[in-house]
Amino acid sequence: MKFGQKISQAKVKRLPIYYRALQKLEVARKKFVSSMDLAEMLELKPEKIRADLLEFDKIGIKGLGYNVKELKNKIASAMGLQNNWHVAIIGAGNLGAALANYDGISNFDLALVAIFDIDKEKIGTEINGVRVYDFEKFSSISRRKLIDIAILAVPDDAAQNVADVLAEGNVRGIWNFTSVNLNVPYYVTVVNENLSVGLGTLSFYMNQTI
Amino acid sequence: MKFGQKISQAKVKRLPIYYRALQKLEVARKKFVSSMDLAEMLELKPEKIRADLLEFDKIGIKGLGYNVKELKNKIASAMGLQNNWHVAIIGAGNLGAALANYDGISNFDLALVAIFDIDKEKIGTEINGVRVYDFEKFSSISRRKLIDIAILAVPDDAAQNVADVLAEGNVRGIWNFTSVNLNVPYYVTVVNENLSVGLGTLSFYMNQTI
Repeated sequence: MKFGQKISQAKVKRLPIYYRALQKLEVARKKFVSSMDLAEMLELKPEKIRADLLEFDKIGIKGLGYNVKELKNKIASAMGLQNNWHVAIIGAGNLGAALANYDGISNFDLALVAIFDIDKEKIGTEINGVRVYDFEKFSSISRRKLIDIAILAVPDDAAQNVADVLAEGNVRGIWNFTSVNLNVPYYVTVVNENLSVGLGTLSFYMNQTI
Repeated sequence: MKFGQKISQAKVKRLPIYYRALQKLEVARKKFVSSMDLAEMLELKPEKIRADLLEFDKIGIKGLGYNVKELKNKIASAMGLQNNWHVAIIGAGNLGAALANYDGISNFDLALVAIFDIDKEKIGTEINGVRVYDFEKFSSISRRKLIDIAILAVPDDAAQNVADVLAEGNVRGIWNFTSVNLNVPYYVTVVNENLSVGLGTLSFYMNQTI
């Protein structure tokens, strides 16, 4: 899916990082933060940070920096976190269970409302307080629980079939942990979580230091 | 850790993606691939791909494109995959177990040689054919199995202590799934796997389409 060119993909990926940093500063009761301090926290250049944040806050208050809470709220709004998306995890295997315990979902004000599997042993159990439902009933449960986002943690060979059911069940976003390039209708946004990038990058940098 | 400026971070992150695509093409017995075909597979611009791959292969054979196997091997070499790093997973919880079953490790010619935990119930068991060892014995097992890379899948509050043990045990790379900014000696490379980027990006793009 293509979107407006107003904001670069690289910058979109930095917004969650700024958001999490500001969230931590808020918990630590910091009221203001400079671009220099953010640069040190995040290992980014201060000029890059100032350019990224220009649309949210021109420069902050001179000598004090950015207002932590205000900036956090503006970034949250740009990220659409005020939608409080309802999230479901598809696949209650090890990865699904790990993601059910992942605090990033609640950190973004999202609600994990259901987990789905086809394994009769798992259906009816709970993971981190969230019930595992029969994926056969996805459509009716999705309607009832208003599921917006599905986290796809199923085997690759099931991925496309599951995605078809998700799209028919009014899911609008898929966070895809499989390595399949999903075909989805225009109204479904897919973000692929490609773990091979992290591992490959690590090998690359280790190789530079030999 | 800072590295030479010869290759941008963004490009380093694309190398594993090219590598996996070429691997799939090789399995499908394709001998040649054009930058246009790669562009379509990977949803990147053909000009970007040609610029990225210039250092490996000037332009490929006219009318045929890149030689799949040759290009794959050159990228593998740039990524340091010929080192056949030995990998250990630290933490045999849901995430560790999911990663033990992750085929990206073997796809990169890396070998998962051990899993570590402190839970007596888990020590001595196997996950995907790999034994779970007592983390207390990390140093001696690391020496014996020549562990290069540790995948850190432990709770945040244990992360720094574990990283200290890893560094002392001659680990040279950490793939960090915790949200802790690790302090490590100069000879240890850390790549942080920040899942919040994927989820935050998804929310951003969904919000654009409302």
